[in-house]
Amino acid sequence: MPSATTHPRLDFASDNVTIASPAILAALQTANVNCENSYGEDSYSIALNQRVAEIFECEVTVLPMTTGTATNALALSALCKPYEAVYCHQTAHAMTDECGAPEFFSHGAKLIGLPGAHGRLQSADLESAVQFARSMGVHHVQPAALTLSQATEWGTVYTPADLRALTDSAHRLGLRTHLDGARFANALVHLGCTPADISWRAGIDLLSLGATKNGALAAEALVVFDQSLAAELMFRRKRAGHLWSKMRFLSAQLLAYLTDDLWLNNARHANALATRLSQGLSTLTGVRVVQPVQANEVFVEAPTRLIAHWRKAGYHFYDWPAPEGMSGSVIRLVTSFDMLATDVDALIASATH
Amino acid sequence: MPSATTHPRLDFASDNVTIASPAILAALQTANVNCENSYGEDSYSIALNQRVAEIFECEVTVLPMTTGTATNALALSALCKPYEAVYCHQTAHAMTDECGAPEFFSHGAKLIGLPGAHGRLQSADLESAVQFARSMGVHHVQPAALTLSQATEWGTVYTPADLRALTDSAHRLGLRTHLDGARFANALVHLGCTPADISWRAGIDLLSLGATKNGALAAEALVVFDQSLAAELMFRRKRAGHLWSKMRFLSAQLLAYLTDDLWLNNARHANALATRLSQGLSTLTGVRVVQPVQANEVFVEAPTRLIAHWRKAGYHFYDWPAPEGMSGSVIRLVTSFDMLATDVDALIASATH
Amino acid sequence: MPSATTHPRLDFASDNVTIASPAILAALQTANVNCENSYGEDSYSIALNQRVAEIFECEVTVLPMTTGTATNALALSALCKPYEAVYCHQTAHAMTDECGAPEFFSHGAKLIGLPGAHGRLQSADLESAVQFARSMGVHHVQPAALTLSQATEWGTVYTPADLRALTDSAHRLGLRTHLDGARFANALVHLGCTPADISWRAGIDLLSLGATKNGALAAEALVVFDQSLAAELMFRRKRAGHLWSKMRFLSAQLLAYLTDDLWLNNARHANALATRLSQGLSTLTGVRVVQPVQANEVFVEAPTRLIAHWRKAGYHFYDWPAPEGMSGSVIRLVTSFDMLATDVDALIASATH
Amino acid sequence: MPSATTHPRLDFASDNVTIASPAILAALQTANVNCENSYGEDSYSIALNQRVAEIFECEVTVLPMTTGTATNALALSALCKPYEAVYCHQTAHAMTDECGAPEFFSHGAKLIGLPGAHGRLQSADLESAVQFARSMGVHHVQPAALTLSQATEWGTVYTPADLRALTDSAHRLGLRTHLDGARFANALVHLGCTPADISWRAGIDLLSLGATKNGALAAEALVVFDQSLAAELMFRRKRAGHLWSKMRFLSAQLLAYLTDDLWLNNARHANALATRLSQGLSTLTGVRVVQPVQANEVFVEAPTRLIAHWRKAGYHFYDWPAPEGMSGSVIRLVTSFDMLATDVDALIASATH
Repeated sequence: MPSATTHPRLDFASDNVTIASPAILAALQTANVNCENSYGEDSYSIALNQRVAEIFECEVTVLPMTTGTATNALALSALCKPYEAVYCHQTAHAMTDECGAPEFFSHGAKLIGLPGAHGRLQSADLESAVQFARSMGVHHVQPAALTLSQATEWGTVYTPADLRALTDSAHRLGLRTHLDGARFANALVHLGCTPADISWRAGIDLLSLGATKNGALAAEALVVFDQSLAAELMFRRKRAGHLWSKMRFLSAQLLAYLTDDLWLNNARHANALATRLSQGLSTLTGVRVVQPVQANEVFVEAPTRLIAHWRKAGYHFYDWPAPEGMSGSVIRLVTSFDMLATDVDALIASATH
Repeated sequence: MPSATTHPRLDFASDNVTIASPAILAALQTANVNCENSYGEDSYSIALNQRVAEIFECEVTVLPMTTGTATNALALSALCKPYEAVYCHQTAHAMTDECGAPEFFSHGAKLIGLPGAHGRLQSADLESAVQFARSMGVHHVQPAALTLSQATEWGTVYTPADLRALTDSAHRLGLRTHLDGARFANALVHLGCTPADISWRAGIDLLSLGATKNGALAAEALVVFDQSLAAELMFRRKRAGHLWSKMRFLSAQLLAYLTDDLWLNNARHANALATRLSQGLSTLTGVRVVQPVQANEVFVEAPTRLIAHWRKAGYHFYDWPAPEGMSGSVIRLVTSFDMLATDVDALIASATH
Repeated sequence: MPSATTHPRLDFASDNVTIASPAILAALQTANVNCENSYGEDSYSIALNQRVAEIFECEVTVLPMTTGTATNALALSALCKPYEAVYCHQTAHAMTDECGAPEFFSHGAKLIGLPGAHGRLQSADLESAVQFARSMGVHHVQPAALTLSQATEWGTVYTPADLRALTDSAHRLGLRTHLDGARFANALVHLGCTPADISWRAGIDLLSLGATKNGALAAEALVVFDQSLAAELMFRRKRAGHLWSKMRFLSAQLLAYLTDDLWLNNARHANALATRLSQGLSTLTGVRVVQPVQANEVFVEAPTRLIAHWRKAGYHFYDWPAPEGMSGSVIRLVTSFDMLATDVDALIASATH
Repeated sequence: MPSATTHPRLDFASDNVTIASPAILAALQTANVNCENSYGEDSYSIALNQRVAEIFECEVTVLPMTTGTATNALALSALCKPYEAVYCHQTAHAMTDECGAPEFFSHGAKLIGLPGAHGRLQSADLESAVQFARSMGVHHVQPAALTLSQATEWGTVYTPADLRALTDSAHRLGLRTHLDGARFANALVHLGCTPADISWRAGIDLLSLGATKNGALAAEALVVFDQSLAAELMFRRKRAGHLWSKMRFLSAQLLAYLTDDLWLNNARHANALATRLSQGLSTLTGVRVVQPVQANEVFVEAPTRLIAHWRKAGYHFYDWPAPEGMSGSVIRLVTSFDMLATDVDALIASATH
């Protein structure tokens, strides 16, 4: 674990306030020799594509990019026409936290938010929404794609069977599928399955594979399983200004991330701290964990006095809208690869000081 | 100069095949401690904004981004409405090399290309084009902005007076102005003036300040002189997926670039090599330098036999469309901060071996 | 009333299956002499602008167009930037029946649907939605506009005070306002107020004034009260292909519509028939009118056996999603200016045959 | 010929200042009985589709619309993706007179203008432009479609062989083809061929068939020969607000236009007057007809004194940019179906009074 960080750490706001894994920074140094072809024709990008194919056990095209917002929005733009609709959970990042990036990249396709406990969608809701749209004919945007988040916005995880049920519905209805894997590694180590099990083998056509929240400086990979989409995505990426000229410095980050199990180890560490945090919080009076903890996020209802106490002590975290059917003050606490068990314990301990 | 590169270097294709300056990589390492606020509220981004303000001697808002295409297209999107027009040189990067990014970001505004020797526009051409558009009323996209390149696509440079003449015309006609400074540092050291002299003081409202081609891994800064545009640009950047969560790693590159004259020294080195290259080439039989060499690019007409000879020897460079009114085979040779004088001399020498 | 229609009429599907008012067709004939300037500089368009100004008691710019979808979408495109949000009722025509036209014209702005009994919005819901969006900063599309429907999708009407309360909230929050008046005349005669009372005097900046459903062949008017928006709308209309060259034939329809109280008389007739229909239906066993009848639409819950009986008898009407909190089979019956009282009575009578 | 117009007529500005053919107005009257299904499922629209299929001797889908700008832009939007390019003549209406409608409908696809004498394109220019774009790979918008105008902006006509040569090039290069037939009837009667000969049989995939300039109030038909495009176009039309609810009133215009040779007779009349006008003008001192007269437009170079004289006498016409390689004052004079030979003769005669 990195030693370059001051502990106890008080910042539980997000896994994007973190440093980069030293191994990833070292990879940039290693890549900094000689000329390399630009725009993705460098040796690191070629190696990355091979590495992802190996890990996912299938042919892939990998488009490295800088942000999750770009990766998600680019993916969706290739799955729908401007007069079509994309279905997602009503709390999805693409729906509420990307300033309309999906609408921008898709030229105005409509995101239609569906309900679902713990941030997870249900096939029945998807099916009735699609049926409604189809019944409206030319007057309504027509169903084209389904996007799911793994882990979800509530820090929960779909099992391979959950995903398969949803993508089966989607494909039967003529929709293509995307998985927002900003925290894919966290879901993966929670499930203990293979990357393929929760992506193409579970019916996913395009995957946003996140690395930034789990150790990279700024690196996400759009993993294309449906090769018929690859060429179009290349043009759309360039047009959106997301094709790095010195691509080696993006691919090298992702290569290091996927080497020597760095991504899995980082995610395991973060997940374990979330579980530890959740267990510790459950011992506090008036505190209730309001969602299953399956990745690296803990959502808790807590007395406003305690919340204020933590803030006064210097802790950073976000207030969060309470889940449907619940009132009370809910906050989100996020753990990460560069946090220590003592950081978590210190937060628990501070509650009673 | 970096020693991590094999010499003699054979790649003259572009300044984007280069490594990163060691000082910039070192800055990433230095920034890799502790938590920092995400999305640009980190200490490096704040320091960067101050540093740019200092260098440009005025209030600025700096939006760091990853590619020149994104920076240019984002800038233009804030200068025009979708039913308006942007004027540029017909060889401008935005016109021919960005896969329609300006049209994407601006939602279909029209780039109108104008002629001009050596890649430089003339006020008279701008004025007559604007007058024509205005005369067409509602039937024609209406003039909104002018974008210039410094250095130009032909490796030439506008003087401060050149720029002022063009921006005076533009402002008088009601257009706002953008400068594509992918090679701003190269132009700056050629002119020996201040950054302000060829930006806001010369009537520029928005500047794309490039660093990638001159030492960064991937870093460009959109420098906003017209503060009324800043808020809108923030939303447009996020929506385009260009807001890094761990922004420190982008800002730190730019800070290092603008520290201890790294940007100027790198550019001086590249420019000096281009001059040396140009002079050496002029001594070769049948070779003619076809544009003034004022930055780090050399365009030469050469016998096809010589061009083939270089390629066979392993040299990389691009064929280039001949300037208007010229036939013959033209190639582009680009020098850079990580190239040595011996690399240049070797290319000249190889012509006669 | 037109005699050119077969009675009893069996089509209650919509007020867009109707013929045109004879006076409007006659106006086309009258306009068919001599040359007229094209693109809206004809004498009929000029007279129309004056007539609308007179009726609305204020300065206006009138942009005649062909469809309600175009008129609504064009209006919204001038009220928001692509990264902004428009609030509407979740049942609004713009939300569900325009195939994403608002997203197309606005380049991807987001429509955010809010709840509200009887198709009417409440200020409190608008305010909390806007507050949420503002709290999200750069990550969320930002509030720009409110669009209301008068009459609503449930055939109900906002009073001037209702409208004023909503537009006051909107303006206080920095939003501009649009009214979808596809059935404006029906609302107007129900309320017995002046056109100004439910438009600019009630805080509306842009009005889509419908005529097609109430007697025109195809004519809607975008009435611009906020003159700062007029020039932009002219360009946007042309760009969308909605600027007729022989505009006289569009303006002449609207002029006739607004002459000799044709619009009011047509609407009064249709409304009266809806009331008559509603009263008649209420006498039938198992039939329940589920929304207040304030314009020319009647929504009723009816036994499935009766619904099938009507259909077998040749009647046309749409099934409708039941209002929130209600189950049962709901249908919509629409009356119009070219329908007779005997048509309505025949439908009632047929229920018991 | 209509008698409802004052003669001698002084307006030679455009064929869109004209009245409507009486037969077309009469058709509206005839259509004004009983209810008809809305949105194109009426009996007139069905009959229109059959009539167009008959005239063009093939299966078609017809989408009636209101303006040529909409029809052209909608067509192009189905032929290219937003990151692609459409090639056209540099004087094409779509390029200069539609306020960026093609860019709007296509979400920013790029129109690339090519040269060509008399407004006609040459295959060689298309081929080299496409080759250049392809050589640029991901950095350049990629060739997708060719759009031609028949008659051209210079009032000239492509022969069936001319069209075939161009569409053969286009199809070989992987481009699809559109024909802007705002003055299709004028070209048709000039050539004396069948409608098929200058549309699908000449390799055209989509045709904008104009009627407005030749007798309709406002009616154009998008004729779809490539049936794989039909469904998409239906959604795009609705989304653009161009789907009339009372479609019968649009289809009835087009039906009348295509009945009893009205369209051909109107065009023959207008063309004959243009020839008469051209011949008369040629007898005047200092006047030179600068383009072949093959439809209903006459472009002449004339002494400025004479131009001023006509204007003083009340004549309306447009100044026009001189064709390439010509200086001098050029004006455009347009004839139409509702003009008389005496109108033309009066203009000639007035030159010497």
